[in-house]
Amino acid sequence: MTKFTIGIDFGTESARAVLVRLSDGAEMASAVHAYADGVIDEHLPGTSIRLDPDWALQNALDYVEAVRVTVPMVLAESSVQPEDVIGIGIDFTACTMLPVTRTGVPLSALPEYHDNPHAWVKLWKHHAAQPEANKLNEIAMERGETWLSRYGGKISSEWFFPKALQILNEAPEIYDAADRLIEAADWIVWQLTGVETRNSCTAGYKAIWSKEDGFPSPDFFAALHPRMRHIVQDKMKEQILPLGARAGGLTEEMARATGLLAGTAVAVANVDAHVAVPAATVTGTGRMVMIMGTSTCHMVVGESPAIVPGMCGVVEDGILPNLAGFEAGQSAVGDHFAWVVENCVPASYQAEADARGISLHQLLEEKAAALEAGESGLLALDWWNGNRSVLVDVDLTGLLLGATLATKPEEIYRALIEATAFGTRVIIEAFEENGVPVRDLVAAGGLPERNRLLMQIYADITGREIQVVATTQAGALGSAMHGAVAAGSAAGGFATIEAAAARMAHLKEETFKPQAETQEVYDRLYREYVILHDYFGRGANDVMKSLKALRAEVLAQR
Amino acid sequence: MTKFTIGIDFGTESARAVLVRLSDGAEMASAVHAYADGVIDEHLPGTSIRLDPDWALQNALDYVEAVRVTVPMVLAESSVQPEDVIGIGIDFTACTMLPVTRTGVPLSALPEYHDNPHAWVKLWKHHAAQPEANKLNEIAMERGETWLSRYGGKISSEWFFPKALQILNEAPEIYDAADRLIEAADWIVWQLTGVETRNSCTAGYKAIWSKEDGFPSPDFFAALHPRMRHIVQDKMKEQILPLGARAGGLTEEMARATGLLAGTAVAVANVDAHVAVPAATVTGTGRMVMIMGTSTCHMVVGESPAIVPGMCGVVEDGILPNLAGFEAGQSAVGDHFAWVVENCVPASYQAEADARGISLHQLLEEKAAALEAGESGLLALDWWNGNRSVLVDVDLTGLLLGATLATKPEEIYRALIEATAFGTRVIIEAFEENGVPVRDLVAAGGLPERNRLLMQIYADITGREIQVVATTQAGALGSAMHGAVAAGSAAGGFATIEAAAARMAHLKEETFKPQAETQEVYDRLYREYVILHDYFGRGANDVMKSLKALRAEVLAQR
Repeated sequence: MTKFTIGIDFGTESARAVLVRLSDGAEMASAVHAYADGVIDEHLPGTSIRLDPDWALQNALDYVEAVRVTVPMVLAESSVQPEDVIGIGIDFTACTMLPVTRTGVPLSALPEYHDNPHAWVKLWKHHAAQPEANKLNEIAMERGETWLSRYGGKISSEWFFPKALQILNEAPEIYDAADRLIEAADWIVWQLTGVETRNSCTAGYKAIWSKEDGFPSPDFFAALHPRMRHIVQDKMKEQILPLGARAGGLTEEMARATGLLAGTAVAVANVDAHVAVPAATVTGTGRMVMIMGTSTCHMVVGESPAIVPGMCGVVEDGILPNLAGFEAGQSAVGDHFAWVVENCVPASYQAEADARGISLHQLLEEKAAALEAGESGLLALDWWNGNRSVLVDVDLTGLLLGATLATKPEEIYRALIEATAFGTRVIIEAFEENGVPVRDLVAAGGLPERNRLLMQIYADITGREIQVVATTQAGALGSAMHGAVAAGSAAGGFATIEAAAARMAHLKEETFKPQAETQEVYDRLYREYVILHDYFGRGANDVMKSLKALRAEVLAQR
Repeated sequence: MTKFTIGIDFGTESARAVLVRLSDGAEMASAVHAYADGVIDEHLPGTSIRLDPDWALQNALDYVEAVRVTVPMVLAESSVQPEDVIGIGIDFTACTMLPVTRTGVPLSALPEYHDNPHAWVKLWKHHAAQPEANKLNEIAMERGETWLSRYGGKISSEWFFPKALQILNEAPEIYDAADRLIEAADWIVWQLTGVETRNSCTAGYKAIWSKEDGFPSPDFFAALHPRMRHIVQDKMKEQILPLGARAGGLTEEMARATGLLAGTAVAVANVDAHVAVPAATVTGTGRMVMIMGTSTCHMVVGESPAIVPGMCGVVEDGILPNLAGFEAGQSAVGDHFAWVVENCVPASYQAEADARGISLHQLLEEKAAALEAGESGLLALDWWNGNRSVLVDVDLTGLLLGATLATKPEEIYRALIEATAFGTRVIIEAFEENGVPVRDLVAAGGLPERNRLLMQIYADITGREIQVVATTQAGALGSAMHGAVAAGSAAGGFATIEAAAARMAHLKEETFKPQAETQEVYDRLYREYVILHDYFGRGANDVMKSLKALRAEVLAQR
């Protein structure tokens, strides 16, 4: 008897449920629900309370509503019987966190806290905790905290403890009222099962947890703020469950709401990018998964948690059980190409694209594809939004070199594609130099679907074969796979994520292989890229920072 | 009794005659005539003989025709009597040169040579003599020719002897048939007067002549090509006349053709940019004239011919009599801004400009003017067409640094304006460091007329006051002034160019003064500019050359 699981991918604007067949990973049905309050970045809903520019909140109740809406839809659309759905898995944006009561009620849902912005979910892209992140990094440096090196030497303002500290600094009454501070990922699993669990992925990548050392010490937290000394013991959970573990069974209430059976296995939570790794067929070392969109997230697993300079993080059990999960990142990839399209393409190109009924991206890709490697004479540094890996420096900015009066927009477009590929190669080489092999690549996300030139250039520049994930819903599929592992083989699921991946995950047949001749040209360009990368990125010439500082001064005097 | 002179400015596409009143420099009438054969860069006129891509020829007879057409027009339009026109001066593009017979007949006008491209005028922008220029520079270096340092260490392929050598290499029969090789500037004066003269400006700036040392030695020429040993003695003229000298009187034939009196004084020839210096009121040291258009030509005079590294040339009597004339250049200025407009401005801007009935340049200037110095965070190297002064390196290319996802087209536009101003400041500082003072600036040409933001940025970045020449026809006015000097004070003209300038040349009243606060910001940016300028321009990182070389390889294999 064929069994099924449901994966729910909680994104920034909406959640998507996919009902998947375990025998082959086929997507039987899919449903999307947009959050009613969306991204809250101007006013608190139902109030005139304004938010500062760097804020980004959400309403936790929207997540529950998304489950109530989408699960019945995929059941209905697929005509699958509830008893054949043996598991549920979810993945979430992260760090997206909220303060709740001991029973899991979001503080924002309580009338007495509704009008306090700090009672609401802080979305991953809430950037208002930068002062707290700066303080945290400073203290960690001073104290010589060894965990800093696991995160490229810098904790992001997007992560858990800067956000928690911001609550404590700005709204101590909310900090006090919060019995728990929790990732939304873990919170939604709590809502589904009635059991509070914490997963190794968000704990490791966003909350400085490691399997060996646990969380940072009470002394560190006390140095950050005296009242934070026992934050882990008081408001979190020290027990962290590995990915694929069963968090619990579906509650009676959620069973009624969704049409599923009570007791259906629910996997512990996961993060959208990380859960895509097994959905990309990758369950072992040597293959790097790139989730490519506006930015790129690179994930690879290794036998042991080596320190690789400039990563976003290394976490045991963070991506796959019993393996060290490495995450690196490029803070802008597709965003570069969108910048060209929005700013650097003349009206004549727009007219040509319109006449042919194609997008400017398609037109530029076509024109760029007609160029040879090295033909434009251009070389760029892909730092239009700073550099995450391996330099971990948000103050770096973009560089375009080699322009002549004959330089065309498609040449700039191609140079930026190449620059992001050179950036990826720097990351790959950092992994390999530190004992984490990267033999080939698997691409997921929106970009690889749309841009074949991009894939070929990445293959030629990295010198590695690239395959593309078969599904466009790698997050939801990966979650469904974890749901199947949580259900276990006895119930018709799988004993391990490897077993699930072997049946459910697929790559497209097409493969992008490095072309020897082009590779040779790109090797030469890469050497030049590295010289510029190190010159501007490692302190020899800090002009990018000087310009940014000058800009800030000028704007402040305005 | 008020007297008049006529200045004729021979440009690339057309010639313009202006009839000027000597008492105040007022332009009484003006007439333009486009050359029938224009710039010949595809086929020889009346034949199917194709020209190679770097070629650019002209038909010498077009120049005479322009005189025959325009002079009667200005006489008629102004109603000035021929006896009140006491002199003629001309200026020309240079080096624009041709082979002629002993009596001055262009070889291209002789049926037996008509179909040989080398018989025609080689226009200034004929670039096919690059191999000859390379050889000339190599031999000059080997021989330690001291004159090389007067030209920034490099003789351009546009200049006289590379072009002459190309004729000898590729068409020895034309070289043999040419009794004279001559600048078109001197040739048209010969046509007007019946007297062959050579002027100090083209001889000095384009034919390696100096007042002290004359032309390069026969040994040098022999090393270049055995048959060139006596090129100066055989095909040129060793006697060089200073600017403002009387070449001769108008011939009977040209008098009949133009309506002027025979014997009317004709000044020796001049070059368009250089003749603009007295027309910009500058007759002494300390003021630099910038002729700003697609490129910029910088001219300043000094007491003695110091060697300033990276100049286009230093020539005694080259701009003004008894002074050392220094010429520097930026190979692209307005061309940078045109590149942005053509390549880097989105359709939405085009629509805005169209709706408001203004040009994209005007729109970008307006948007760029709303920015503060330093606000964009951008810094560029203005090398989209290489760097003439002070690096003398055509293989340098453009650089844009500091881009972010928020960077706008007007910020790039402004950064390129600023970059060209930084480039001018490098030139000014090179002059001053070598004992040639530059206290303030006078701008002429098309750009200063159109772009007030540009003028203010140049004032702020150079820290010098800038005035703009009153006339848009500085070339023709300067020629008319030289015509008045050639006529002499006894005839109602002037004894010296200083006296002519005092009466005839004017600046606009508006002046652009450096603003202290902005200047401070630009001083900081300039220090960063110089670091990048030296890093990429003086050999520390030759990436621009590597990219150009790679590009050439790739294209060659295509």
